[in-house]
Amino acid sequence: MSAGAARVRRTSTRLADGRELIYFDDSEPYVSGAATRRLDDPRPLPDRFADVVDEDGTARPVTAPEMRYDVLTGEWVPMAAHRMNRTFLPSAETNPLAPARPGAAYSDGEIPATDYDVVVFENRFPSLVAVPGVPDEVRYLDGEPLWPTRPAAGRCEVICFSPDPAGSLAGVGTRRMRTVIEAWADRTARLGALDGVEQVFCFENRGKEIGVTLHHPHGQIYAYPYLTPRTATMLRQARAHRERTGRNLLRDVLEAELRSGRRVVAESEHWAAYVPAAARWPVEVHVAPRRDVPDLPALTDPERSDLARLYLRVLQAGDRFFTWPEDSPRAGEPIPLPYVAGWHQAPVREGRDDLRLHLQLFSVLRAPGKLKYLAGSESGMGAWVSDTTPERIADRWRDVMADDVKEPGA
Amino acid sequence: MSAGAARVRRTSTRLADGRELIYFDDSEPYVSGAATRRLDDPRPLPDRFADVVDEDGTARPVTAPEMRYDVLTGEWVPMAAHRMNRTFLPSAETNPLAPARPGAAYSDGEIPATDYDVVVFENRFPSLVAVPGVPDEVRYLDGEPLWPTRPAAGRCEVICFSPDPAGSLAGVGTRRMRTVIEAWADRTARLGALDGVEQVFCFENRGKEIGVTLHHPHGQIYAYPYLTPRTATMLRQARAHRERTGRNLLRDVLEAELRSGRRVVAESEHWAAYVPAAARWPVEVHVAPRRDVPDLPALTDPERSDLARLYLRVLQAGDRFFTWPEDSPRAGEPIPLPYVAGWHQAPVREGRDDLRLHLQLFSVLRAPGKLKYLAGSESGMGAWVSDTTPERIADRWRDVMADDVKEPGA
Repeated sequence: MSAGAARVRRTSTRLADGRELIYFDDSEPYVSGAATRRLDDPRPLPDRFADVVDEDGTARPVTAPEMRYDVLTGEWVPMAAHRMNRTFLPSAETNPLAPARPGAAYSDGEIPATDYDVVVFENRFPSLVAVPGVPDEVRYLDGEPLWPTRPAAGRCEVICFSPDPAGSLAGVGTRRMRTVIEAWADRTARLGALDGVEQVFCFENRGKEIGVTLHHPHGQIYAYPYLTPRTATMLRQARAHRERTGRNLLRDVLEAELRSGRRVVAESEHWAAYVPAAARWPVEVHVAPRRDVPDLPALTDPERSDLARLYLRVLQAGDRFFTWPEDSPRAGEPIPLPYVAGWHQAPVREGRDDLRLHLQLFSVLRAPGKLKYLAGSESGMGAWVSDTTPERIADRWRDVMADDVKEPGA
Repeated sequence: MSAGAARVRRTSTRLADGRELIYFDDSEPYVSGAATRRLDDPRPLPDRFADVVDEDGTARPVTAPEMRYDVLTGEWVPMAAHRMNRTFLPSAETNPLAPARPGAAYSDGEIPATDYDVVVFENRFPSLVAVPGVPDEVRYLDGEPLWPTRPAAGRCEVICFSPDPAGSLAGVGTRRMRTVIEAWADRTARLGALDGVEQVFCFENRGKEIGVTLHHPHGQIYAYPYLTPRTATMLRQARAHRERTGRNLLRDVLEAELRSGRRVVAESEHWAAYVPAAARWPVEVHVAPRRDVPDLPALTDPERSDLARLYLRVLQAGDRFFTWPEDSPRAGEPIPLPYVAGWHQAPVREGRDDLRLHLQLFSVLRAPGKLKYLAGSESGMGAWVSDTTPERIADRWRDVMADDVKEPGA
């Protein structure tokens, strides 16, 4: 697999409204370069930054999305106050992430190619977007120094893991997963190079339990123009640890987990998966590289290939974590795990030695049909209460990892 | 209403398993002191701290609940690792918060009295509880300095707002609301005086959308043995503001909101309700006193009475915030608002001059039948994205506040 990176072909294109769309093809014939290729988006979309025309014919400039500083918490909050050009909405029956139908005059989906391996494109309705000509300046709502506002000048992208709408990331196979990792690394490096971007977050929301309405296997990539609260908090903790011990906090955490072994659920040559000692979600697992690495672009080829295999094992085990109980009509059947999986990476400009790459996967499902709700203590006070223990979670992960079957493509 | 406080009669009792239960009666005949009185809990509950006896007859001491320090965030996470005496569970059909049935040998509910006004009792399955004889000491999981653990030695209480299982806090009337405020103030003062308690949080979770399965109108009171993340964050912000300006942050926020007026939704002699400038929830409102006050016990009688009236107006308006759409069978009918409402109070031991009492009420409902989900960005990164703007939220609050009807009991 050491030649993996070289095998992926990257083709950047533009959609009709000006958004970037990038194909990541992992094998011959590279689909976006072969017979199925159709790079031009034939939809009659106006440029996304063109003036918005009202029903009475009045034209006005697109409003840039804004974010406000929450002075009680020190956090920026992007607001959907803006109106982008929303004239062309796909019909409800359409899957906008499916490949275009061959021979159709045009698809009302987002992807012009009639087949693809992995594809990334800018979200049509982004909460973060840099609007050309809008200066990245702090202004003050009502002139009050307590209320700074700024353009929410980041970027929101969608990543499709597979052309098959009925699949899941757990089922794409190691070669395709390797391409997903290439795409994540590419986006992290390129988005991090954009003006004003402080941090890149690659993540997947999966399952209706966390509000996903589109079942096509896909994830998202956010380029934030600020440090997110979780990253800022981890950075503060990591710096305090460095000051106290001279060491990297996340490396020390990994070493302590490996030393203890009590919550380690899987190991490979370059990676380890463990339930952290203070896990707060009903299901949680972290996946960390053995080597000190700030972000995905810093991974070597062998580390990427090894990750592709290990992450698939974790995802497949996740889909065995819960089974329908004996008294249900689907007794014993596994329940596809609803989850959030996100890559914690070092920010672009700071903490490169203090923050260390790791994946956090967690679920709100605490038992078949039962969710962990974030109510008063969690949502009001940020004070988590766990319904279980990290050791119980780890025991279950190990049970379901043990059912591993060798994947044919591995 | 200036004699309001004097009118409430407080009667502390013990349940069969040793938990404290306190009646707050607001009018003659004080129900817990009159004909309906039955103070003794007749249930065959073993003492909650007695040894747990296994099926084979083995007795072992109750395990104290534990909390672990999350070194990545600096937060304590209580864990439901303990086993309390759970031998006596109410049947599923029972409402454990209803008054006892008159004449019944015993109720399997929690409240021995056959009628009550407001009642508070210790939660039977608490995530925070001080177990006698367990020292409040930091220990280290696996001997690792990265993994401090401590007993979760706080207290979790339930507060019933009304004996009527079908009612809601919005409908209790000003006299009863005044008693609820007395009960909150009493619990804040008394729980704050307990060893090791750092902070008291009075809150209400309402609606199945946030996981409430028990519809009897009730709230909860948590006495945390640590500063919650939200409070620690606000305290850090308030101290930085004090250092920079010499002023109190929350007072400056209130004054700026009143000066702008754009998001103020209601005012009274002693209180103001406003949507904060960086509100992040689909529905949110803060209620703050005009006078600098650290917590509920510090409120004067007139402030409490004024709050009772204003808070009822806010809650009633909340239940008009959303109505079923025209194409639904219940077109135009108001939707009871699912919400979390919590009192941010100064901690017991620090920040008494920097943190200032205010209520935060918010909802995950963003439209009829549509929820705001906390997915990757919010749950993984703590990075909120609002689907609306504070001004739109405030406009809607003002619309529904304008429908105020004078309450007969006011």
